[in-house]
Amino acid sequence: MLKELLTPEIVQFIRERQWAAMRDALVIWPPAEVADLLQSLEQPERVLLLRFLPRSFEAEVFSELTPKLQDEMLGGLTNHEVRVLLAELNPDDRAALIDEMPAEVTRRLFNLLSPEDLKETRWLLGYPEGSIGRVMTPNFVDIKAEMTVEEALSHIREYGRASETINVVFVVDEKGKLVDEVSLRHLILAPPETKVRAVMDGNIASLSGYCDQEEAVAMIKKYNYLALPVVDSAGILLGIVTIDDLMDVAEAEVTEDFHKLGAVSMEAGGEGPIESIREAAVSLLFRRRIGWLVLLVFINVFSGFGILFFEEIIAAVVALVFFMPLLVGCGGNAGSQSATLLVRALATGDVKMDDLWKMFLKEFFVSLLLGLTMGAAVFGIAYFRGGTSVGIVVAVSMVLIVMASCIVGMLLPFVLQRFGKDPATASAPLITSLADIGGILIYFSIASKVIDL
Amino acid sequence: MLKELLTPEIVQFIRERQWAAMRDALVIWPPAEVADLLQSLEQPERVLLLRFLPRSFEAEVFSELTPKLQDEMLGGLTNHEVRVLLAELNPDDRAALIDEMPAEVTRRLFNLLSPEDLKETRWLLGYPEGSIGRVMTPNFVDIKAEMTVEEALSHIREYGRASETINVVFVVDEKGKLVDEVSLRHLILAPPETKVRAVMDGNIASLSGYCDQEEAVAMIKKYNYLALPVVDSAGILLGIVTIDDLMDVAEAEVTEDFHKLGAVSMEAGGEGPIESIREAAVSLLFRRRIGWLVLLVFINVFSGFGILFFEEIIAAVVALVFFMPLLVGCGGNAGSQSATLLVRALATGDVKMDDLWKMFLKEFFVSLLLGLTMGAAVFGIAYFRGGTSVGIVVAVSMVLIVMASCIVGMLLPFVLQRFGKDPATASAPLITSLADIGGILIYFSIASKVIDL
Repeated sequence: MLKELLTPEIVQFIRERQWAAMRDALVIWPPAEVADLLQSLEQPERVLLLRFLPRSFEAEVFSELTPKLQDEMLGGLTNHEVRVLLAELNPDDRAALIDEMPAEVTRRLFNLLSPEDLKETRWLLGYPEGSIGRVMTPNFVDIKAEMTVEEALSHIREYGRASETINVVFVVDEKGKLVDEVSLRHLILAPPETKVRAVMDGNIASLSGYCDQEEAVAMIKKYNYLALPVVDSAGILLGIVTIDDLMDVAEAEVTEDFHKLGAVSMEAGGEGPIESIREAAVSLLFRRRIGWLVLLVFINVFSGFGILFFEEIIAAVVALVFFMPLLVGCGGNAGSQSATLLVRALATGDVKMDDLWKMFLKEFFVSLLLGLTMGAAVFGIAYFRGGTSVGIVVAVSMVLIVMASCIVGMLLPFVLQRFGKDPATASAPLITSLADIGGILIYFSIASKVIDL
Repeated sequence: MLKELLTPEIVQFIRERQWAAMRDALVIWPPAEVADLLQSLEQPERVLLLRFLPRSFEAEVFSELTPKLQDEMLGGLTNHEVRVLLAELNPDDRAALIDEMPAEVTRRLFNLLSPEDLKETRWLLGYPEGSIGRVMTPNFVDIKAEMTVEEALSHIREYGRASETINVVFVVDEKGKLVDEVSLRHLILAPPETKVRAVMDGNIASLSGYCDQEEAVAMIKKYNYLALPVVDSAGILLGIVTIDDLMDVAEAEVTEDFHKLGAVSMEAGGEGPIESIREAAVSLLFRRRIGWLVLLVFINVFSGFGILFFEEIIAAVVALVFFMPLLVGCGGNAGSQSATLLVRALATGDVKMDDLWKMFLKEFFVSLLLGLTMGAAVFGIAYFRGGTSVGIVVAVSMVLIVMASCIVGMLLPFVLQRFGKDPATASAPLITSLADIGGILIYFSIASKVIDL
């Protein structure tokens, strides 16, 4: 349903540099689509077009651009234009912008902010990265419990224009302390002369600005809220976070879990997951990936030592090597499945720490069935290549390797969570590497027992 | 911030079976928390407590329970109680309930529905699984463009009570055709005598009921909508989907990608990802996991044939086996990273099919750097164990294996998407297995060249 952006009309506007006509065509577009259009234009056109947009619309479009393009656009604007743009941005978008720009751009931006905006931005930036304070907005509507619904609605009419949302308004006492939240829906549906107190349900959830963004995402998902209030230690209402800001947080969080599960690190060259691998530099991708890979090289060396330990039997029965990659590979595959299932279940809250014993038992039986089925599958191949004894060695090894790998793949995320680490650190490559070592030890131990007989 | 549910007060209520007092304490809780409380109670208490809750609250709590518990609870209620409960459920929750219950329960439910509810439920169920029609609700408020804002607000007051949301209302013409959507915010902030037409912006996105839920999720994320209208082929407004229903869809979608990336199938014993691995039976987990694992056994057999092909050189230089698991393991690790990054980037829309060439070039350079670094790391070990020639064989093999695995890991998701398959089918275990085969061929080919010299 997303429309083709570069319509013949738009292409003609650009070719004939009819910026004013183009602006009139674009102002009814959603800001996200105008942002997409800007992404697909070249540099002089981009800035020219942005300049022609009405101020508040320009700010909305600007906050939908990628950080890289924002940086580029700021370079093309005069100081005066940047000042106007900054003044129009929402405080949370402004804080996000200043946070993501290189240091020299940040300095320029700080110099261009009005004293009040600077105060607001610094205030938002005082919270640690990943905290609710970073995404909250101080633009909300507060009402008093003693107002009538009619008074509350006219207060909302007067002060609601600058608010990020008025679907939910917040009831505070005379000191600014949060008392309750009331949805606009309830106000509209109540008789005008009712007191606000009568539509309150006394049921309020609030967060500290220092609270982790992930916690807020979990709350908003569980309770289907559209906005959450942020309070200080005395319960004074400081700001709100809205569902659309938290959806972006939730998406970044999921990307972080994916990347971790793929053994991509979160640290080198800035915190958190790589925002766009399309835009990421080769050097950033390299630094994010090399850490785990080199660590795993050294873990994988142990597989070699396992082989060294059994070198005699390998030299005596070279045919055994035929089944080695098959056996250790299958162990790694089954173990990765277990780790992936557990990491996701811990992230969604499906499985909790208390379920360790229950999940262990279940994994035991599932992996036994998997091992037996896969053992039966390889027995045929092994029997055909090396007779009964090789068949038995390979099949029994398969059962034990699959079970061991699955149980490690299932336990490791639990152990990591228990010690306050992210369960997703139990990545598929890590489990596969551990399965390699374990697999070699199990296989050749069984082989040397049986072949000694 | 989630409160401890089994407070001393609640425990006492349960022990003394004071259901009425307990109900009074619970009705101000969010329904999701009461549902959690029910999950933690035993069977007779559960049904007793649910029975005591006020009707509409009971329905809200009920729709937050897991399908398994819903099934159990329905078994404990009389036909009359079930009928009352069904009448109170939202149409979309009711359709979801009927969809998820076993066939005999579904038959019982259909028999207990009132004729209008049955019609509504059947109508919602007429759309294919995974379509927007399945999650839309016919409970919305529609207004006319000719109304004044004041008339529209009093219309909303009158008809808005049963609506799933009134944060957005929909403007239709006299035939029921969708004309525009207007947020409650704009109505509240406009002067009462303004015509609705004057607050419309002519900018409307709508969906067909047959449209895929994932498409709706993408739209809601991109445009920060709170609700989307669903229309038929003539543009008549049929229903709406709200952000909270779509967030559940989005979460299931992400789980599906995780499971696929871990080589867990979506088909055996019902469509879609396993909803809860905590609740899933051993037999379901087994069936979902065994398909790919057995397929990969047969793929891994090719690694054995690779070894068979080079059996002579292995028998001659057994020391070469020492580095085999290390080299193929590292290839698999690097390849899984590439596949994971690409699968996620294609899912979020960061990377599109058009970016194939750009991503290929980037992957080429990243994997070259990764290969060189890892090659340097193993050169030391290999030199120490086998002298210069072994060192060179191992280091050169590492570079080529890492590059080949990364490029396969990066290309496979693109190829799958190109042929209309889910890119996440390029799972970490599949890439690892392919890297095993490729790694063995590359390593021993190079070794036999160098050792022939």
